Amino acid sequence: MYAVIMAGGRGTRFWPRSREKKPKHLLDIVSKRTIIQETVDRIKSLIPPENILIVTGKKHARELIKQLPEIPAQNIIIEPVGKNTAACIGLAALHIQKIVPDDVMIVLPSDHAIGDCRKYLEVISAAAKVADQEGGLVTIGIKPSSPQTGFGYIEQGQSLRNVSGKEVFRVKSIREKPDLLKARKFVQSGKFYWNSGMFIWKASIILKEIERCLPDLYTGLMKIKEVLGTSKEATIVPRVYKGLASISIDYGVMEKADNAFMMPGDFGWSDVGSWDALWEISARDNQGNALTGGGSAIFTDTEGALVYSPKKLVALIGVKDLIIVETKDALLICKKGRSQDVKKVVDTLEAAKKKKYL
Amino acid sequence: MYAVIMAGGRGTRFWPRSREKKPKHLLDIVSKRTIIQETVDRIKSLIPPENILIVTGKKHARELIKQLPEIPAQNIIIEPVGKNTAACIGLAALHIQKIVPDDVMIVLPSDHAIGDCRKYLEVISAAAKVADQEGGLVTIGIKPSSPQTGFGYIEQGQSLRNVSGKEVFRVKSIREKPDLLKARKFVQSGKFYWNSGMFIWKASIILKEIERCLPDLYTGLMKIKEVLGTSKEATIVPRVYKGLASISIDYGVMEKADNAFMMPGDFGWSDVGSWDALWEISARDNQGNALTGGGSAIFTDTEGALVYSPKKLVALIGVKDLIIVETKDALLICKKGRSQDVKKVVDTLEAAKKKKYL
Repeated sequence: MYAVIMAGGRGTRFWPRSREKKPKHLLDIVSKRTIIQETVDRIKSLIPPENILIVTGKKHARELIKQLPEIPAQNIIIEPVGKNTAACIGLAALHIQKIVPDDVMIVLPSDHAIGDCRKYLEVISAAAKVADQEGGLVTIGIKPSSPQTGFGYIEQGQSLRNVSGKEVFRVKSIREKPDLLKARKFVQSGKFYWNSGMFIWKASIILKEIERCLPDLYTGLMKIKEVLGTSKEATIVPRVYKGLASISIDYGVMEKADNAFMMPGDFGWSDVGSWDALWEISARDNQGNALTGGGSAIFTDTEGALVYSPKKLVALIGVKDLIIVETKDALLICKKGRSQDVKKVVDTLEAAKKKKYL
Repeated sequence: MYAVIMAGGRGTRFWPRSREKKPKHLLDIVSKRTIIQETVDRIKSLIPPENILIVTGKKHARELIKQLPEIPAQNIIIEPVGKNTAACIGLAALHIQKIVPDDVMIVLPSDHAIGDCRKYLEVISAAAKVADQEGGLVTIGIKPSSPQTGFGYIEQGQSLRNVSGKEVFRVKSIREKPDLLKARKFVQSGKFYWNSGMFIWKASIILKEIERCLPDLYTGLMKIKEVLGTSKEATIVPRVYKGLASISIDYGVMEKADNAFMMPGDFGWSDVGSWDALWEISARDNQGNALTGGGSAIFTDTEGALVYSPKKLVALIGVKDLIIVETKDALLICKKGRSQDVKKVVDTLEAAKKKKYL
């Protein structure tokens, strides 16, 4: 089996910690390990490092190699430009087929957090069996704990059977991020799951489905396949890749496929999509204050704070629901529930050409 | 004439900027000059530097001399311990009488801010005339703009006459910090003024009043007088000074004196008693945000903030009425209106023996 870790994220939502050169997955934001290190650590007990491929952009490759010394350098696949997940996964499938005729590939986002690693591996293993035996496209749906509007949803179809004690459903539909009303209905129905962006399938099967559903993308991928490992790779791959359609594997393939399955995951999952999301999964005291980064703090009449300040003593007095993030050159003070607006700050800095803060 | 600037404050209320070695008056908290520099700058146009005496504690003398190169070193009077204003003023009066037989002394706190320097000097000059001609004890009362509970009040007595166009009242009573109800009555009556802690009198007159009102303190001062300028000064002064009563000149003398006068001041005054008070006198944008210390900030949907962060870019999102102060080793986040609790943080640090933050 192979793992393919997609590490193309920009992660502007974790400014001032995330910067152009250090997107979210390269940050030790959830634990002392970086998120991608944790992702590799988890899957390593199922898949040896030499079978773990990582797809990333050129400007993050160096840091990535530094953070993951156990991954062979040739397993780092450089994506010439970001072209969404269908192209990225297609490219990874070609690389796998260059090594072995065919195999199951476990496609994982690089920047999510998992609560219960054991349960997670059980679900992934069962999904790999389904992919191998049924030749199916399997995705992991996360049992929703609240009507989140920031995630896509997967609607379960017919229940097929149990594999290793895990239920397998057909995928009935894939839904974009809903509004709150819709999200509530989804959760109430009990038939909708958060789209985790994890996929398990055989390389040959996903390529066949890409051929059927996204023929233009497939044509491009075949041009790439021809030159992989040849002297033309360095010039042809970027040229072809830049012309590929930018579409997600969810909408491009999964939704149109007849053999799409969903297995529910209930292992504590977060996409760590914002400072707010990080507070949700952080250890907190009785007043709901989370102190991260190993710094020290004095909380006086303060509730619901998330503090990251690795070096300074932080004193808080009479404040509620604040996110405080201090880095070498910047300080963020954000009301909790407003961390989606961190992106606006980055936009402002970009517009003002303040490169040093980006 | 002489000026006596009392610079004995600890100023824990401006933590993390104020520290044991840097109390409020030694900080550039109101402008680019430190508060004591501004105090000297103001009075210098009335009194030459060689006639400006500064009373301070031993551990602040070095920094003070550094900040005020124009003041002769022998004008820095070291107070062996803090003993409140009566002892401090008595000591300063002795030093003046060592230089000249007698003269008017203008006693000023080192750590207040003045809005209109010209008006301020007019009032001080007029008060000096009253002190000189009437042999009176003159204090400056500040016309209250709100029912502050953090200040003492002076009740005006009989209106005497105008001096240089300024009204002179007898002091009817001196009141400690009132509760809000009382403060409101004070302000409504139109007869109460904030006690600014500025006093103008002749050295001989205040010493005579100390003799009458505080005979024990006077006895101690006379022991000090005997040894000033002799080889015994270094050993005797600290020993005697430590035994002096700790009482304010307001309650110890002014309230009991028959010749106490008050002249109203309306020149924009602040005791800069807290981060809240600093926000009040700081330049603010239309949303009430004050950015101090020369740093930069991005205010997104933010109101009423006071930000001090000289080096870092500060981004604020969706917050209201916050005080944010960033220093080399500490960060304060305090709800506006709660800055009196900064002292609690300092107490906590003291209790925990975290000396590096004190």
